[in-house]
Amino acid sequence: MRFDQTWTAVGKDGFEFSASVPGTIQSDYAKARNWGDIQYADTVYRFDEIEDWDWTYRTKLDFSAEVGEQVFFVAEGIDYRFDILLNGAVIYSQEGMYTPVKLDLTDRAKAGDLLEVYLYPRPWREGALVGDHAARSAADESCKAPVTYGWDWNPRLVNLGIWQDAYILTCKPEHIHACEPFYTLNEDRTRAEVRFETECQGLVTYTVTDPDGMVIYEGTKPSFTVENPRLWWCNGQGEPALYRWTAKSASDEKSGNIGFRTVKLVRNVGADNVHGYPKSRYPAPITVELNGRRIFVKGSNFVNPEIFFGEITEARYEEQILLVKEANMNLLRVWGGAGVCKKSFYEICDREGILVWQEFMLACNNYIGTPHYLRILEQEATSILKSLRRYPSIAFWCGGNELFNAWSGMDEQSMALRLLNKLCYDLDPSRPFMMTAPLEGMAHGSYTFFSEGKDVFQRFNACRNTAYSEFGVPSISPVESLKRVIPEEERFPMRETDAWTAHHGYHAWVGDTWLCNEIYDGYFGKPESLEERVEQSNWLQSVGYQAIFEEARRQWPHCSMALNWCLNEPWITAGNNSLIAYPNLPKPAFYAVKNSLAGQVPSARVEKFLWKAGEMFAAEVWYLNDLPKTAEEELTISLTVNGETQELLRWSTGTVGENQNKLGPTVHVQLPDEALDPSLILTVTTASGKSNSYRLLFVGKKQTVRKAATMNV
Amino acid sequence: MRFDQTWTAVGKDGFEFSASVPGTIQSDYAKARNWGDIQYADTVYRFDEIEDWDWTYRTKLDFSAEVGEQVFFVAEGIDYRFDILLNGAVIYSQEGMYTPVKLDLTDRAKAGDLLEVYLYPRPWREGALVGDHAARSAADESCKAPVTYGWDWNPRLVNLGIWQDAYILTCKPEHIHACEPFYTLNEDRTRAEVRFETECQGLVTYTVTDPDGMVIYEGTKPSFTVENPRLWWCNGQGEPALYRWTAKSASDEKSGNIGFRTVKLVRNVGADNVHGYPKSRYPAPITVELNGRRIFVKGSNFVNPEIFFGEITEARYEEQILLVKEANMNLLRVWGGAGVCKKSFYEICDREGILVWQEFMLACNNYIGTPHYLRILEQEATSILKSLRRYPSIAFWCGGNELFNAWSGMDEQSMALRLLNKLCYDLDPSRPFMMTAPLEGMAHGSYTFFSEGKDVFQRFNACRNTAYSEFGVPSISPVESLKRVIPEEERFPMRETDAWTAHHGYHAWVGDTWLCNEIYDGYFGKPESLEERVEQSNWLQSVGYQAIFEEARRQWPHCSMALNWCLNEPWITAGNNSLIAYPNLPKPAFYAVKNSLAGQVPSARVEKFLWKAGEMFAAEVWYLNDLPKTAEEELTISLTVNGETQELLRWSTGTVGENQNKLGPTVHVQLPDEALDPSLILTVTTASGKSNSYRLLFVGKKQTVRKAATMNV
Repeated sequence: MRFDQTWTAVGKDGFEFSASVPGTIQSDYAKARNWGDIQYADTVYRFDEIEDWDWTYRTKLDFSAEVGEQVFFVAEGIDYRFDILLNGAVIYSQEGMYTPVKLDLTDRAKAGDLLEVYLYPRPWREGALVGDHAARSAADESCKAPVTYGWDWNPRLVNLGIWQDAYILTCKPEHIHACEPFYTLNEDRTRAEVRFETECQGLVTYTVTDPDGMVIYEGTKPSFTVENPRLWWCNGQGEPALYRWTAKSASDEKSGNIGFRTVKLVRNVGADNVHGYPKSRYPAPITVELNGRRIFVKGSNFVNPEIFFGEITEARYEEQILLVKEANMNLLRVWGGAGVCKKSFYEICDREGILVWQEFMLACNNYIGTPHYLRILEQEATSILKSLRRYPSIAFWCGGNELFNAWSGMDEQSMALRLLNKLCYDLDPSRPFMMTAPLEGMAHGSYTFFSEGKDVFQRFNACRNTAYSEFGVPSISPVESLKRVIPEEERFPMRETDAWTAHHGYHAWVGDTWLCNEIYDGYFGKPESLEERVEQSNWLQSVGYQAIFEEARRQWPHCSMALNWCLNEPWITAGNNSLIAYPNLPKPAFYAVKNSLAGQVPSARVEKFLWKAGEMFAAEVWYLNDLPKTAEEELTISLTVNGETQELLRWSTGTVGENQNKLGPTVHVQLPDEALDPSLILTVTTASGKSNSYRLLFVGKKQTVRKAATMNV
Repeated sequence: MRFDQTWTAVGKDGFEFSASVPGTIQSDYAKARNWGDIQYADTVYRFDEIEDWDWTYRTKLDFSAEVGEQVFFVAEGIDYRFDILLNGAVIYSQEGMYTPVKLDLTDRAKAGDLLEVYLYPRPWREGALVGDHAARSAADESCKAPVTYGWDWNPRLVNLGIWQDAYILTCKPEHIHACEPFYTLNEDRTRAEVRFETECQGLVTYTVTDPDGMVIYEGTKPSFTVENPRLWWCNGQGEPALYRWTAKSASDEKSGNIGFRTVKLVRNVGADNVHGYPKSRYPAPITVELNGRRIFVKGSNFVNPEIFFGEITEARYEEQILLVKEANMNLLRVWGGAGVCKKSFYEICDREGILVWQEFMLACNNYIGTPHYLRILEQEATSILKSLRRYPSIAFWCGGNELFNAWSGMDEQSMALRLLNKLCYDLDPSRPFMMTAPLEGMAHGSYTFFSEGKDVFQRFNACRNTAYSEFGVPSISPVESLKRVIPEEERFPMRETDAWTAHHGYHAWVGDTWLCNEIYDGYFGKPESLEERVEQSNWLQSVGYQAIFEEARRQWPHCSMALNWCLNEPWITAGNNSLIAYPNLPKPAFYAVKNSLAGQVPSARVEKFLWKAGEMFAAEVWYLNDLPKTAEEELTISLTVNGETQELLRWSTGTVGENQNKLGPTVHVQLPDEALDPSLILTVTTASGKSNSYRLLFVGKKQTVRKAATMNV
């Protein structure tokens, strides 16, 4: 039986306050001290005062155990280094937030005893660089999610706390302490051999039902065979078939899902050979092969949905994953900077058919691998692997984010990555492991609509990478959100105030990221209102993501993946590359991406965003299909210029094969000599009602286009 | 005590013959059958008859043991799958040639008993492709050195046999069954903590002497500290300081060396950043950092010195390694195709200061990693690691040759390579491990003087790779060697006969590799004699290797390595990229390379090999220094054209820093309008007597240069 406890906490100032478990201690303190809406203005900087504090959680134990029952204190995750004290004496110590604690208190503790969890101050590597918003290198000798040390869209707020469930557990002798199913599929996936590894003193009966709820196995033998299992598929490729298992002993019951599938990372078509001598290696494999089928991976980068990890709930995960599914995505990259999610995240992904690229908690640092660090990493990665390998949605493991780039400095020889490769090999051999992304052939960025003299159409049409696992186009947050966080008098015109800066509108990365007014001014001139500027940013974000996602799809199968940076955000930013504003507001770009990622959709390759009067407009027509079924459509291509729409062409696609695209004709149109309306809209529709429109910018022949940004990101 | 045995063997035909141990069974059979010189003509094809045979070695045991002594049958290596039988009964079975056997026969065997080693037929993966010379894919599910399945310079002759020492060992109770020293160095390498891991029933006394023979430790404690140890350095960078240890028990003694050094693979200078977005990863680390010092690695690829591995002796290794040292090289890549050498190889490298890049026995195949294969690989790699990690000369481990190239098909996800990473991490964590070569940034090839329309000057001057771990320029073998193997009537003009083809003169790779007459004809026209053609090939090989090695050195530190393909060869080839002809004859190119690799040497970057009358000749002057000491020289640059030598320039280098090069002036010379002598010789000399000459080809203005080869290799 589980007994939740009532907790208080006390920090360095001796002030005792009510503590939430699960929760984050700084959030509880702020509430108790009535700091108000921490989203507002630069309130978040108040956390600097308590940044280096240590804390103690306290509870008077409240439980009752029957004779013969064991008593445990279970904490599924405590962030980060801690001692556990019973009646004032340390009975356990640990470093690491991902390794659960299960402390046997039988005959040691009774109701009313004082249990304390003492948290050491947050780890902070001496000599770490501290920027305006971030001190990520302070995290490079610990296994914390480095994002809490500050990122260009997340305030520095190094979480501490009992961030996952913690409770007293009383167990009868037949308690099932662990039960995990493993399976092997034969080569053609027509037979699965399943076996359970179970920790229980008594007899256990297993019941397994198929996705329709029909019992397919019942018995005490911990192994059985499934003939012709229904396979687990990701969104768009089939149903995410889940079998349900229950293990029952005389006094306990555990249950879970099994999803039968194979997943591999294979080399991209057409990227296999490298011509000429001297000859280097070919690009790294990054095509996902699910159940023997190569698929185009389309999705997004998932970050912590809250700045306080302890406050992330199943409901928060669920509302965001449902949007991911709605957006026709099939994979989320759980970005290493934010570490590993709680289990409910993976349960929902299993159910909704969303593949997961799971990273360990390394990002943008050189984790040089001191003996102490490697020991904690081994412990934490082992716990993560054992806890998550059961979820079929997890497609592959990755060491962390951008570790083989100049701002990190790791490489194939880094012991931390060699260790992770080894642990994955030992504990989860059927899943791929890659050390980091990007690897050879893959790419990250760019992150603005316009940089290095090119807009995203020009830039990505010229790229030939195998996978785009990050790319971003920002927009400014919804006006309602900004009204909550930016004091009225500072809102418009936007300017470098503490509130805008605290919300990453300035100096978050380069210049005015993530507001990027310089770019918008370049295209549109100075805005009349906040609303107008936000709308302009949404225009660019929508058409920009449309351009990149569709170009990546057109390059299939040489390119096998497009994941924008990023899906969501943990608090209200001034502007961000996210598709979903905090807490869960889809931006206009969300709907543009949803349309671009439809399984079957007409598409056009447009050269550039900005067109001048009198130019020859051209666009290449495509039909994109990443569903496992053929298509055949009648397309109509039209152009709206100066408010008038002309039909340019009709094209019958003929048969478009399963998981294949088809290139159609190229249309050419002489643009008029005068630009009367800035919206130049190319529309491709199908007879069956699908539609895809590109809203481009049309300007006069002699109009001087303002310098569109100096940003090279 | 060790008792060597007298062996016979019998094959499928029932013929019993005397067998050498160590040896290779096919060689013994051929000798017994009087097949004659197997180098001659196409005699080697006779081995096809016995290719799929099984064999049995036999010996009547000959030893005497005292009371209380244990008796073992020790076999340090049996190639490949075998049973061991005592008086007709199988007492042991194994697959794998690198895992030693130590079979306890105490109270089981007596003198006069029959001991047999039954060899199964050589492994042969069903469905493997068989070409004229090679069937390497037949080796892709076994842990044999794949070169014995045939290569473009090694006949297909799949070795079997007791290839390393095998004997009866009698042991008193205090026998030292194992003793291995381990050490850790502190960060600035001023203190070494040494400990021995020893397997012995009795008391063991350790004595350790420094490189001068002075005792620095004596005692029974298996650990001690060395203050300010003398470090082991490679050739050119310092002395290969070796400490000597002896472990003595009441009845036994073992000894060996310790070399204190640290070695890392770090990223190349200037190769760290990749500009622009979308941005991929940076190149893989391939600069060797020895004792904290980045060094330019110059060396060669070492292959099996004999086609029969059992016949490779310490003396053969030694004569070749001494040439390597003489050639100013500091590293040998022990190429995975030929597997792992016998221990004496590493002992000599330790002594002579030659670093070793050691590969596992994977090459140019897709070792897909069946469960059986992975099990044998784990066993074999474990044995190799435990046996070789004690040698300081071994700089790093590598999974194998060219596994990330189209002709192989492996990648980061290949289980065999993930397993090797894991084993190296577990068993030898202080040494780097790379999965294969080339990795990103590195390159292999080209392998001819002229290909894809460019000579090696043009080709390599334009390259910007981080390491050239293979590149080749062939020459035809010495005339004396050819006289031994090619029947007189076929020798000249060279033509596609069985003898020339068997010796890899034709169809070994592309067209007439490795004779390459097409290229020589292109430059020089048809030859008058065999001698003339061999001389022409030596000219191109010498100046070609000079061009590549020196260009790689000039690109230091962005480029950190140049290893030509290859140093040696296991039999008399018609032509080959080797510097040392079989068995141990340095070719003219050997001396050219020796000069190019001198620690301090003047050098010139020349644009191309072939110059026409009237052209403007140009060369960039350099002073190369990869010694850990400065230089200062006075250079004289002169050009010999039409038999007359003119001094072009003098240049004072000023101070050239340690392990640094210096760029000097560029000279320009108008070449005369007529070419009277084909040798155009650029010479750079120093006042201290160093000299470097480039013999180029000078032809008339209107002379039609014949098409120089179609080969693109």
